[in-house]
Amino acid sequence: MLLSKYFLPILKEDPKEAEIVSHRLMLRAGMIRQQTAGIYSWLPLGLRVLENVARIVREEQNRAGALELLMPTIQSADLWRESGRYDDYGKEMLRIEDRHERELLFGPTNEEMITDIFRNTVRSYRDLPLNLYHIQWKFRDEVRPRFGVMRGREFLMKDAYSFDVDAESARHAYNRMFVAYLRTFKRLGLTAIPMRADTGPIGGDLSHEFIILAETGESQVFCDQDLLTLDLPGDDTDFAADLSGVVSNWTTPYAATEEMHDADAFAALPEARQVSARGIEVGHIFYFGAKYSEPMKARVTGPDGVERPVHMGSYGVGVSRLLGALIEASHDEAGIIWPDSVAPFNVGLINLKPGDVATDEIAAGIVARLESAGLSVLYDDTDQRAGAKFATMDLIGLPWQLIVGPKGAAKGEVEIKRRATGERETLGIDAAVNRLVHETA
Amino acid sequence: MLLSKYFLPILKEDPKEAEIVSHRLMLRAGMIRQQTAGIYSWLPLGLRVLENVARIVREEQNRAGALELLMPTIQSADLWRESGRYDDYGKEMLRIEDRHERELLFGPTNEEMITDIFRNTVRSYRDLPLNLYHIQWKFRDEVRPRFGVMRGREFLMKDAYSFDVDAESARHAYNRMFVAYLRTFKRLGLTAIPMRADTGPIGGDLSHEFIILAETGESQVFCDQDLLTLDLPGDDTDFAADLSGVVSNWTTPYAATEEMHDADAFAALPEARQVSARGIEVGHIFYFGAKYSEPMKARVTGPDGVERPVHMGSYGVGVSRLLGALIEASHDEAGIIWPDSVAPFNVGLINLKPGDVATDEIAAGIVARLESAGLSVLYDDTDQRAGAKFATMDLIGLPWQLIVGPKGAAKGEVEIKRRATGERETLGIDAAVNRLVHETA
Repeated sequence: MLLSKYFLPILKEDPKEAEIVSHRLMLRAGMIRQQTAGIYSWLPLGLRVLENVARIVREEQNRAGALELLMPTIQSADLWRESGRYDDYGKEMLRIEDRHERELLFGPTNEEMITDIFRNTVRSYRDLPLNLYHIQWKFRDEVRPRFGVMRGREFLMKDAYSFDVDAESARHAYNRMFVAYLRTFKRLGLTAIPMRADTGPIGGDLSHEFIILAETGESQVFCDQDLLTLDLPGDDTDFAADLSGVVSNWTTPYAATEEMHDADAFAALPEARQVSARGIEVGHIFYFGAKYSEPMKARVTGPDGVERPVHMGSYGVGVSRLLGALIEASHDEAGIIWPDSVAPFNVGLINLKPGDVATDEIAAGIVARLESAGLSVLYDDTDQRAGAKFATMDLIGLPWQLIVGPKGAAKGEVEIKRRATGERETLGIDAAVNRLVHETA
Repeated sequence: MLLSKYFLPILKEDPKEAEIVSHRLMLRAGMIRQQTAGIYSWLPLGLRVLENVARIVREEQNRAGALELLMPTIQSADLWRESGRYDDYGKEMLRIEDRHERELLFGPTNEEMITDIFRNTVRSYRDLPLNLYHIQWKFRDEVRPRFGVMRGREFLMKDAYSFDVDAESARHAYNRMFVAYLRTFKRLGLTAIPMRADTGPIGGDLSHEFIILAETGESQVFCDQDLLTLDLPGDDTDFAADLSGVVSNWTTPYAATEEMHDADAFAALPEARQVSARGIEVGHIFYFGAKYSEPMKARVTGPDGVERPVHMGSYGVGVSRLLGALIEASHDEAGIIWPDSVAPFNVGLINLKPGDVATDEIAAGIVARLESAGLSVLYDDTDQRAGAKFATMDLIGLPWQLIVGPKGAAKGEVEIKRRATGERETLGIDAAVNRLVHETA
């Protein structure tokens, strides 16, 4: 992609409304733009990261056996009356009346709708276990939306819903999502700690939040230092197998959010292992049994021929919020530092002298070779001065920069820079291309 | 994908509410489910087709130089007051009040919002031409939603917006989208005819609808028979070049919707070339100059240093509606016939005797080989009887069926069937795999 033809409205000044660094950097890097309180447009650079995050979430859901569908944003109020949550949900629910005065709402979550789909299509335990998920925009009418996409009103969420014939099987479903979440956040380049959590308006009695530790976190969390270095489940994880061992490894060390904190248990840890920090919630999983299936009559016949309410759980990842969390966890004074897995482009190529035959040819050749190797490249072919080009590349945080200048061109050399470390190296053109292809693979 | 683990709630009976064949077949094939009037969930099979259609639309937008972003579904009423359309839009607009009694709406289209983004980020002709698009859910509160996804209330649309310094450059932008649309519909397996059209609430004086001819079409259309066999722009189309020749070839022969019909001009055609038919609108493009930029003060400085309102156009494709149009154009008594380019799976594999060691081994081997060649396979490993399996595969319309039975297995043979023609052929296993890989490439 040529920067001269791209839409990247960089802000030179810090926007006043941004209270935290991720919000400030997303605005400055031209990733998002607020349309009205808590509602954002995703500009091309931001959308690329959002899609990359969603892709990793999707791949890990599919790997764990969940099936993707897509429910609409607008729901009928009647469905929420069946579960009893229509009145409970309060002012956070965006309530709507259509032209025929039918009551609708913009879905804040989808337990009711998925239960409705299930009860109309599944009858027998033979069709279970089943896990259905979607990645769709939700709306929660926060009193005071702030922190950019971290606490927006319209936000993108992955929500999965599991259906099982009994509590034991439902626990396996919970464990599969637990492990899928560990893998998802690892692939996103984050260290997320599962913590016992309050179930809130979703309900149920078993629940974990997945929390990233960050200074700007919204809540106080407590955990055992050992959790920060635990092994994560690998690519060879067998989701058909019993995963309770993995879950046990991750849930035995102490970890809890403030609401669930047990000060005595925490104090019993050796002091060096007591981690008390701020945390950002990026995922939340629930087992709530028959809370929705009972009132909504979602029933299946078991092996014994007897009908019973299906056991359910739900599993959320805040996809759009994750972009804020990623930046809170990975930035420096100069800007964002994207993990390779979600970077909007793998490489930012800077031509220091566009219009110069030698640098133009070398740059175009490198772009072609990197792209044919499957890498994405943002090529700064503009006539801005060098300092501004470097500042932009640092701000938008692409993992690698490749600099082509007239002096190096004469010697057949270019420079590469790793954004995360600032390390620079001068290499021949072939060596530079091979290095980037190799490192990004 | 194993059918035994998939979520494919086939309906055996025709649903009463479906008035047209695409609606009936989408419900029967377990692609969609109505949640409330005109609002649908996309079940896994339907979502796969929706994603494939969106992918082709996206690829052709990108090829034509448009840049993808994503605007939110919820908009501020104030923005629509600036353009004067807030009151004009009537009851089709879903109007919402939030907890602070601010007036919002669920976007039916995005001219105002994109103009707002533009005016805040672009100042100079040097940043033009620019074309920004998104693929996002829209809402139009139809009085009487019907025909399934063909006239739903919540629907997925691709809408692009072009910005140019003058009318001449804007005409080039229009031509690029015109050609991109011809290519898009061709790749979707559709014959879409551009027709002079009324501009309606979008405004402007230059507009074409892209219309598919189908018996169940919503409106009467008229065109020259020659348009049905015109050459389409190929993969080598240069979108940087002057495309007015292509556009002229496609706009010179007579073609118009009922509102724009000129009976005399039509009657002047040789009778054999007079096509009067029902049509389904699948795309609509507009040039409207300064209709939004003037009142909303979206201005750019030209090469002469003088500020002027930017020239705009907008370009819509009904992505979710296209699934209905595709089925209206391609089905038979037994069900849907998907074009290869959008099929939810390339191949449906039927094992006639699951549990039989030989058929199980052959089927598993074939799935592995097809998938490693990049094909997607839905493998019917259930214990349904053969007749039901064939009926399901015909209903859901995968382009190829591959049948593994115990008799053939003994001879190392399988059968393949082309869904569109019904042609069947018995082949050795290697030959069958190679054939499907080759034909799908």
